[in-house]
Amino acid sequence: MKKAILLIQCPDQKGIVAEVSRFLYSYNGNILEVDQHVDVEMGMFFMRAAWELDSFSLGKDEILPRFEQEVGQRFSMEIKLHFDFPKPRMAIFVSKLSHCLFDILGRHHAGQLDVDIPMVISNHPDLKTIVEAFGIPFFHISVTASNKEAAETHQLRLLAEQRVDFIVLARYMQIVSGDFIRHFPNRIINIHHSFLPAFVGARPYHAAFERGVKIIGATAHYVTEELDAGPIIEQEVARVRHHNNIAELVQIGQDVEKVTLSKAIKYHVERKVMAVGNKTIIFY
Amino acid sequence: MKKAILLIQCPDQKGIVAEVSRFLYSYNGNILEVDQHVDVEMGMFFMRAAWELDSFSLGKDEILPRFEQEVGQRFSMEIKLHFDFPKPRMAIFVSKLSHCLFDILGRHHAGQLDVDIPMVISNHPDLKTIVEAFGIPFFHISVTASNKEAAETHQLRLLAEQRVDFIVLARYMQIVSGDFIRHFPNRIINIHHSFLPAFVGARPYHAAFERGVKIIGATAHYVTEELDAGPIIEQEVARVRHHNNIAELVQIGQDVEKVTLSKAIKYHVERKVMAVGNKTIIFY
Amino acid sequence: MKKAILLIQCPDQKGIVAEVSRFLYSYNGNILEVDQHVDVEMGMFFMRAAWELDSFSLGKDEILPRFEQEVGQRFSMEIKLHFDFPKPRMAIFVSKLSHCLFDILGRHHAGQLDVDIPMVISNHPDLKTIVEAFGIPFFHISVTASNKEAAETHQLRLLAEQRVDFIVLARYMQIVSGDFIRHFPNRIINIHHSFLPAFVGARPYHAAFERGVKIIGATAHYVTEELDAGPIIEQEVARVRHHNNIAELVQIGQDVEKVTLSKAIKYHVERKVMAVGNKTIIFY
Amino acid sequence: MKKAILLIQCPDQKGIVAEVSRFLYSYNGNILEVDQHVDVEMGMFFMRAAWELDSFSLGKDEILPRFEQEVGQRFSMEIKLHFDFPKPRMAIFVSKLSHCLFDILGRHHAGQLDVDIPMVISNHPDLKTIVEAFGIPFFHISVTASNKEAAETHQLRLLAEQRVDFIVLARYMQIVSGDFIRHFPNRIINIHHSFLPAFVGARPYHAAFERGVKIIGATAHYVTEELDAGPIIEQEVARVRHHNNIAELVQIGQDVEKVTLSKAIKYHVERKVMAVGNKTIIFY
Repeated sequence: MKKAILLIQCPDQKGIVAEVSRFLYSYNGNILEVDQHVDVEMGMFFMRAAWELDSFSLGKDEILPRFEQEVGQRFSMEIKLHFDFPKPRMAIFVSKLSHCLFDILGRHHAGQLDVDIPMVISNHPDLKTIVEAFGIPFFHISVTASNKEAAETHQLRLLAEQRVDFIVLARYMQIVSGDFIRHFPNRIINIHHSFLPAFVGARPYHAAFERGVKIIGATAHYVTEELDAGPIIEQEVARVRHHNNIAELVQIGQDVEKVTLSKAIKYHVERKVMAVGNKTIIFY
Repeated sequence: MKKAILLIQCPDQKGIVAEVSRFLYSYNGNILEVDQHVDVEMGMFFMRAAWELDSFSLGKDEILPRFEQEVGQRFSMEIKLHFDFPKPRMAIFVSKLSHCLFDILGRHHAGQLDVDIPMVISNHPDLKTIVEAFGIPFFHISVTASNKEAAETHQLRLLAEQRVDFIVLARYMQIVSGDFIRHFPNRIINIHHSFLPAFVGARPYHAAFERGVKIIGATAHYVTEELDAGPIIEQEVARVRHHNNIAELVQIGQDVEKVTLSKAIKYHVERKVMAVGNKTIIFY
Repeated sequence: MKKAILLIQCPDQKGIVAEVSRFLYSYNGNILEVDQHVDVEMGMFFMRAAWELDSFSLGKDEILPRFEQEVGQRFSMEIKLHFDFPKPRMAIFVSKLSHCLFDILGRHHAGQLDVDIPMVISNHPDLKTIVEAFGIPFFHISVTASNKEAAETHQLRLLAEQRVDFIVLARYMQIVSGDFIRHFPNRIINIHHSFLPAFVGARPYHAAFERGVKIIGATAHYVTEELDAGPIIEQEVARVRHHNNIAELVQIGQDVEKVTLSKAIKYHVERKVMAVGNKTIIFY
Repeated sequence: MKKAILLIQCPDQKGIVAEVSRFLYSYNGNILEVDQHVDVEMGMFFMRAAWELDSFSLGKDEILPRFEQEVGQRFSMEIKLHFDFPKPRMAIFVSKLSHCLFDILGRHHAGQLDVDIPMVISNHPDLKTIVEAFGIPFFHISVTASNKEAAETHQLRLLAEQRVDFIVLARYMQIVSGDFIRHFPNRIINIHHSFLPAFVGARPYHAAFERGVKIIGATAHYVTEELDAGPIIEQEVARVRHHNNIAELVQIGQDVEKVTLSKAIKYHVERKVMAVGNKTIIFY
């Protein structure tokens, strides 16, 4: 069964659900999922609708123009149309810490993550053997203070060649440039190892230890130019105790990081995320 | 703002969302919430839609017949229509254990629970003073092996006089009869102090202790004639350790019970629950 | 069964456990609980030991001097000795929000909180009736910009008259002065309605909403002169979603607040908390 | 720093902690961790003590006999003495489902699991490449109705040759025989994909789906001859909703399984587990 997914936002007004569902029905669409959200303060309406393509009487390329003409223009809609095929193409950036990477590769291997992974890019060669055992190409692009711009150019070329749709920073220990980010707006997912907005920046487990918190967390978010300030996709937490030293916080936290990141990837892949300013709507 | 809530179930087919939303729009309804669920195995479609009544051009009593005629008959729908006014009338049954009762009364006092509470009925007099301090009438109806039927008759009369819509068994330590249950089908919510289906029946904390589980739980469910087997509305759990004795399991568990029961009540009051056979759909 | 509880801290060195347990055994003490913690960075040792008093051959007043002489001096120990009788005397400060107060009163009524509660002090009269129905004296002391010092003097006099051991700020919407705090060092427990250190200060639920976090929390901590910066005793969290408005965050958060505060009170009452600088050791 | 760990059980009586800690101190032991538990109903005392070996004045082989003579006999103790070197040798049994296996291998690769893994044994060849990429020997031993006894003999020979200390059944889809289990009493850890004692036996996710539970779980336990009835080491849960079909329950559950199993392995490796009858004491 093939699926189309429509993401809509527009000023809130009556009749939107009726018109969208009428449109889908008029072309013989079987709605599988429909979710809506009204942001009362903004006066904005958001909607996600998924339907079966097999019986649908419009061709893939006809849908968007026809929808804009019949429905979108009238409601001043901002529209995104996705299909669940071909699979989105995801690149993974990693450094030496392997826990998030292996978690993603494991899920992919088990058929739980509906993406193609054309590459893992790392600034260290360490994880090459295992990545390749999973059948994924591995590119080692070292990054230094002096070659950073060239490295990003190299990365961008590989990403373009492989038509990568979005990037996952799986504990990639480099800050990516604003220029790089602008190539992938709301299409770079980072995992930050704290419960944001607590402990922004470097060494959050050390900061959590110093403050004596009883719970630590991790935050998956879209990367924006302001560090650790992008729209939050998912957060998870774990309990810690006074006897846990920093090494143990790191270890407990890594379990949280990998679960949080994998959930965020899944929401992104299933087109369940709408980023609106600094926040996200997650239609799960 | 007044609200109407429609709960629908029917055989799954195309066009249902379109027709329901067209109906609401055609009478100038502003949809606030819409959720749907398809049970693929059963081939059944379930939907909840809530909309503002203030601008709606049909009167309260016109809605259901008009909807049945225009939409319901065509899709063979089973329909329930609710309004969020007047508030549902909830009776609480309790014995001596006060934790669930006080939790409910506290929420009600804080304006978090949109119900009227015309009565607390108890088979013990102990909690009378505090219940009345919350401004709620308290009825002591003792229950013994010999007077059980008369007691239920007395209870049913009070419930009828006060036009009670649904009943919460807040650790009411009596088994209610099948006859009593049939007066309130899927309208009696019980809290069972285990993570069902584990530890059905009496003394679940003792059973949990004997088995050496590491997590205990509580289950809020609609009461059916088979003990502890009704549709589950909500479950919650808490971690326990080897050093927790049964008294501590009870205490830890009571916190879980009250949270679980209050969530279930809230879902029920907001008409977010559809019971289907032995299961529930919760549109939260 | 009566119980004595010893809390010790001293520079880490060998033989401490041996000497403490030898001391208790030599006077026929039956150890019920023993926990230790070594802070490797500080080079400090912390210990909690609880034992049965009934068979103990030292009188209540003999224990501390004898322990200091036989054990404490040798290891340069800082020692606190508590007994589980008479019960600690706890005052509750509250404003209008009742959820934490009612949760505490409910637990106390159910026999789950081993304290005496000689008073509830509030800057508003609203909760008087219910507090008194629980059999607890209620004092209304209004606080304004101009009478704040006098109000605290009044409060301190009541606390002294009733020999109050510690204070719980159960959503008391007034900042207590440094002078007041110095009367109860590490003996005032506050509940802050955020997951500290995120969202320090006023209106944390609004701040959480603005940031778009996916999890909110509450923090129980000892009050120090720096706002929301005292040693954290307990934290809890709850999941929120994009559709939760601020009123819903408040409601979800209040459930977290009351559970967190009650856990912190319990740890404090059972003498399981050692505050060390800005952190706590919780021997649960 | 090398570490010794003593696990003791004996009838409860006074002076045990004093005597154990005196013994360790008298040979210049620095206690790192000490935990105790009294089972009041059984009248039994349990203790775990860990201390630094480097400064200890008894040799590795002298400790146990000396301790038995000086302390153990007097209190009728059952004693186990472990060292944290050499690392315990763990075999992993797996079938086709890879999530638990990869999680373990990932942790081991990251240095989080202090074991040697001399072998992965599988009744299917599928996971060979990836296991070997992690540097772990892989043995394919197919199991059929007719060769089961021979297969176990083969397994036992490999386990003996490699001096394996304990076995992890990482979703190994075969029932191991009583004879096999008797070679590794309380040294085979299984992960069952339900929250035991709910849904014992085959296809627990199907059973959970049928019952309409709102939370699913996983249970790590020692394998005993009665199916799914051995001492529980760890349990975890995850929330599910009415719209999750069985495939989704499986996927959500697999995340719970791998976390639960890895925690259980960690407790076992760190000698924090004491199995007593059908229950465990976990000194974490």
